[in-house]
Amino acid sequence: MTRRTAAILGGSGYTGGELLRLLLRHPGIEVVGVTSQGHAGEPVHRAHPNLRGATTLDFLPRDKLPDADVIFSCTPHTEAMAVVPNLMRDGRVVVDLSADFRLRDPAAYERWYGTPHTAAHLLPEAVYGLPETRRAAVKGARLISGVGCFATATNLALLPLARAGLLEGARVVVDGKIGSSAAGAEVNAAGMHSERSRSHRLYAATSHRHAAEVEQETGARVHASVHTVELVRGVLSTCHILLPGPAPDEKTLWKAYRAQYQDEPFVRIVKERAGTHRGPDPNLVAGSNFADVSFHAEAGDGPGRIVATCALDNLVKGAAGSAVQSMNVALGLPETDGLGQIPLHPV
Amino acid sequence: MTRRTAAILGGSGYTGGELLRLLLRHPGIEVVGVTSQGHAGEPVHRAHPNLRGATTLDFLPRDKLPDADVIFSCTPHTEAMAVVPNLMRDGRVVVDLSADFRLRDPAAYERWYGTPHTAAHLLPEAVYGLPETRRAAVKGARLISGVGCFATATNLALLPLARAGLLEGARVVVDGKIGSSAAGAEVNAAGMHSERSRSHRLYAATSHRHAAEVEQETGARVHASVHTVELVRGVLSTCHILLPGPAPDEKTLWKAYRAQYQDEPFVRIVKERAGTHRGPDPNLVAGSNFADVSFHAEAGDGPGRIVATCALDNLVKGAAGSAVQSMNVALGLPETDGLGQIPLHPV
Amino acid sequence: MTRRTAAILGGSGYTGGELLRLLLRHPGIEVVGVTSQGHAGEPVHRAHPNLRGATTLDFLPRDKLPDADVIFSCTPHTEAMAVVPNLMRDGRVVVDLSADFRLRDPAAYERWYGTPHTAAHLLPEAVYGLPETRRAAVKGARLISGVGCFATATNLALLPLARAGLLEGARVVVDGKIGSSAAGAEVNAAGMHSERSRSHRLYAATSHRHAAEVEQETGARVHASVHTVELVRGVLSTCHILLPGPAPDEKTLWKAYRAQYQDEPFVRIVKERAGTHRGPDPNLVAGSNFADVSFHAEAGDGPGRIVATCALDNLVKGAAGSAVQSMNVALGLPETDGLGQIPLHPV
Amino acid sequence: MTRRTAAILGGSGYTGGELLRLLLRHPGIEVVGVTSQGHAGEPVHRAHPNLRGATTLDFLPRDKLPDADVIFSCTPHTEAMAVVPNLMRDGRVVVDLSADFRLRDPAAYERWYGTPHTAAHLLPEAVYGLPETRRAAVKGARLISGVGCFATATNLALLPLARAGLLEGARVVVDGKIGSSAAGAEVNAAGMHSERSRSHRLYAATSHRHAAEVEQETGARVHASVHTVELVRGVLSTCHILLPGPAPDEKTLWKAYRAQYQDEPFVRIVKERAGTHRGPDPNLVAGSNFADVSFHAEAGDGPGRIVATCALDNLVKGAAGSAVQSMNVALGLPETDGLGQIPLHPV
Repeated sequence: MTRRTAAILGGSGYTGGELLRLLLRHPGIEVVGVTSQGHAGEPVHRAHPNLRGATTLDFLPRDKLPDADVIFSCTPHTEAMAVVPNLMRDGRVVVDLSADFRLRDPAAYERWYGTPHTAAHLLPEAVYGLPETRRAAVKGARLISGVGCFATATNLALLPLARAGLLEGARVVVDGKIGSSAAGAEVNAAGMHSERSRSHRLYAATSHRHAAEVEQETGARVHASVHTVELVRGVLSTCHILLPGPAPDEKTLWKAYRAQYQDEPFVRIVKERAGTHRGPDPNLVAGSNFADVSFHAEAGDGPGRIVATCALDNLVKGAAGSAVQSMNVALGLPETDGLGQIPLHPV
Repeated sequence: MTRRTAAILGGSGYTGGELLRLLLRHPGIEVVGVTSQGHAGEPVHRAHPNLRGATTLDFLPRDKLPDADVIFSCTPHTEAMAVVPNLMRDGRVVVDLSADFRLRDPAAYERWYGTPHTAAHLLPEAVYGLPETRRAAVKGARLISGVGCFATATNLALLPLARAGLLEGARVVVDGKIGSSAAGAEVNAAGMHSERSRSHRLYAATSHRHAAEVEQETGARVHASVHTVELVRGVLSTCHILLPGPAPDEKTLWKAYRAQYQDEPFVRIVKERAGTHRGPDPNLVAGSNFADVSFHAEAGDGPGRIVATCALDNLVKGAAGSAVQSMNVALGLPETDGLGQIPLHPV
Repeated sequence: MTRRTAAILGGSGYTGGELLRLLLRHPGIEVVGVTSQGHAGEPVHRAHPNLRGATTLDFLPRDKLPDADVIFSCTPHTEAMAVVPNLMRDGRVVVDLSADFRLRDPAAYERWYGTPHTAAHLLPEAVYGLPETRRAAVKGARLISGVGCFATATNLALLPLARAGLLEGARVVVDGKIGSSAAGAEVNAAGMHSERSRSHRLYAATSHRHAAEVEQETGARVHASVHTVELVRGVLSTCHILLPGPAPDEKTLWKAYRAQYQDEPFVRIVKERAGTHRGPDPNLVAGSNFADVSFHAEAGDGPGRIVATCALDNLVKGAAGSAVQSMNVALGLPETDGLGQIPLHPV
Repeated sequence: MTRRTAAILGGSGYTGGELLRLLLRHPGIEVVGVTSQGHAGEPVHRAHPNLRGATTLDFLPRDKLPDADVIFSCTPHTEAMAVVPNLMRDGRVVVDLSADFRLRDPAAYERWYGTPHTAAHLLPEAVYGLPETRRAAVKGARLISGVGCFATATNLALLPLARAGLLEGARVVVDGKIGSSAAGAEVNAAGMHSERSRSHRLYAATSHRHAAEVEQETGARVHASVHTVELVRGVLSTCHILLPGPAPDEKTLWKAYRAQYQDEPFVRIVKERAGTHRGPDPNLVAGSNFADVSFHAEAGDGPGRIVATCALDNLVKGAAGSAVQSMNVALGLPETDGLGQIPLHPV
């Protein structure tokens, strides 16, 4: 079978590196080029030392982006919407990993990202790139958005409850924990090892842009708070669903999660009765496209609670992995191609 | 001034080590002995390598506990209630760091600890050893309990809100994060470095014994979930208060927290508008008796939320530090004596 | 092409888990069974949570080890020599990951492992399972040993120098750094997270069993010291070669390392002039079969020094990865099959 | 007793923060001011969040440095020599924490720091600020240098051997491990948490400026290599002394170390036969002025080896702590005043 071609625009950041790690081992894809403004002419393994020995590509200047069946765009939020329309010419499939094409509502975009959307005409055909919520629409899509990492963990934790009607009348608190790679490769004072090592801080106490993606994909209104924690890779979303009445029994919850995820190749229900690893842990999915979910019902006298959690790798299932998975679906390739990495334990 | 004498029963664990670290530098206290069943005859610095050069004490057998003005008891939950009555003879002050004398209600004890209280006759005179909530009662007390580390972080986060009536009609979710030293020095599979390093796991999804201490000290009913995280020392309690109506403005919150804590020597309000260290972080209080608190109001259309957090060192303010602070109050010593350690930054 | 079958004896430890991670994705191998005395009947993902979703195997009792083309034996040192002879019946290939068949000289075995070798008759046909030093012998071998992780890092650092005669008259100090997973999955006090997190300790100051493997494979006598460090996975071997005369120029060293490794698929020379990642770092090979090597010449007035380093993942290139690579060579499969994992960055 | 006054020039960096942490609790010192070019007017706890509640000082502009009995200068290498001569006016004692006054030989300074010394006339009266090697000279000194952190660990490991003549004819390899705070508070790409967390890299393979301080204080020529490791605070210096003949017995080594250190208040010999914490570990001295040392003799057939190690906190005994200790000696205060911090365990 002939392989499809893929190119990456702006591939020297962490997301670009992850796309390369996945695509270089993808059986159906040939990477024909990757650009970088700052690193043009350098071997790719200078910015991505893990890729040494896995590719001999050099970074291309931005204006030398080669033609390809799929373009992955890794330009930053608010810049992508200026670039993407042009990338879409000639029937190419574009996967844009910025936030610019995640929200269908341009007003919501302006509210959260602080600037009007300059390519709002493309929003109707843009598909949110999470196959677990949008598989049918992703098939054959020409413009696929990336996903927010914290949004994805929260969406996958809440989705079965939303679909089963278990969020009705409830108030939802999401307490997120995010690793340092989510801030990207740019240098900044708060991200220095000496300042961040072992720290555990609330960096967004009362609002986070990703809440908009959760509302869009699950219909749930959430009270979100996000902490930065001592992890490089990983997101853990702990969702507390405060119910108006007693909590459902665990059987009901099992049914809801199984119904949603039993055929999903990348969502694992992790719910053991005992043992060290009896629930989701972001450290145990690092490097893989797995999202691990779990749930607990809080019984008691008064109104009850459900605790739903999801752990994933912010750079894989929360970014490059979902992008490749969406590309597979869009092109009609097997959905799991190139995404078979098993995470490490111990690690 | 003559110094008071102190002895420690069962001092080879982490809490015993911390008591020694604090008391050996306390200007008003002389440590006259420390016992250990397993380490009797060994120098104290074998179990507590940090104390090398700070003391030449050896561990005594349990039955050689010397007489002293104050006895700190570090025996485990459910064992302490058999030992403490005897320690109290001859007018000594006893500070019991187990959970056995924390709850005033013996029925609550039996519910949470799974066994009837065998020294319930002492509960009426036992004082919960947190000066921030019980200072008046601690003065002159003969039996002072230790505190739960997660309970203390939650109590100090919620107390100003409870006292100001801001929890009325609200539902409170507490999302706790706790370091590995809270599990004690006993060997166990889940605590191995290779299994725990960088892990971030929900270990008590829907109930935690410390909730009883929160209810007792603040009157708040809480929905608590606790995670183990990549820290050795430290607790962070993130409290989400879901209000029935809109959130109060920040001025109101400042007023409540200032009213409660402006004269407290060990509670710091950490609330900067910008910068890396703009809120509580357990890594930045390690080794000290400080508890750092903060608060945020979530505005918006519907019912609002307050996010209140507290970070402390589980072995100091969450255990040995509060015990020493209570001892100071009980004996009429300056409350901050022996507790002047400044935490480290960077660390 | 029909796939070969493989079975694992004693597969609930870390090495067994890694063999499964690699073999379950190996295109030419079918895993037909894995035994565990303590976990028989349990799903494999109970002991190896990373394998959830990647296999539905359950652990078998030890006496139900299925027949297979290749047996990987993961029994401990000094027990393996009692088991292996029996496993070799019927022409199977056996890869023994213990130390029992690494040393050709039974006297050396007795000296380092403290017990006489009870299967010394097999030592002449046992092949040290490091293709970089023994590729020709591994081809067609029936009994292949595993490798020591620290030994392998040291061997790969020193091999080019040894082959080029650059160790002649030199004295070699090896300063090793090893992660916590090298101690295995057994519970022990020194390995507790609260005791080991961030520690950096000399645990073998003046001798280490792996020195015997270095002497055997490179001919070099080494002064070895090994530290345990804050890593779960990883070995860094820093070799200081104190020369009798001036150090060779870097060109000579480049020549020696290129000659040795230019065709090796898993050894990377990592030697950048600048940048963050300009030399080997165990964190950047985790999960992969890569060994990264580098070298530096110390000029100056008096006798010179070469500094040679190698970083690898102790559980992969230092154990399961070299075992699979050796199996590939022994069976005539492509040497890199099943070993294409690209490590992670950042991580 | 009246307290002496101290002021700090350039106190917003890590060393300045540590000086404040120590001096604010020093019984004989009053801190009368601290300057910062970039933070003038801000509360000190903005840059040093650990000092919140311990001081109400604000940073002063550089030209408002108050008069004081002692001035601590924290300006960078090569800038200090322009500033220090002026600070010394009026009989003040100056402790300069840069490297500018560490080396007695201006030619050595120029060789290692790449620029001629512009205040070479002060070098004859400058005293290297390590009381363990220069106590007599520090008494009454007017200009005291700071110390290099890696140099100090190496000096304290080697000093007893040098004094006992045990380094004669030997070649010495020093394999150093240093935490991230040693790079200072300035932002840089290699120091980002996502790039540095858990990394273990050789950053100075074959030469390090601190070697000059080792040669000056011990007379030993060393082959030094320095790694950056996963620690924020801490240095471990592992010294391999390759002897021309057999190693001395341990009794001889004990004698040498005891002779040197038995009366030193801040050097601990840590040498247990068994147990988790049987030798120096930088994690276990963090925050304190202790330097922990140990030694091992390697027996065997041929020429032997001594392995000597020292662990200390780079910001305390390797910088601010030795500076305060030297100040105490210079002013005739008790040498341990202000330096009684006991490190933490577990941590």
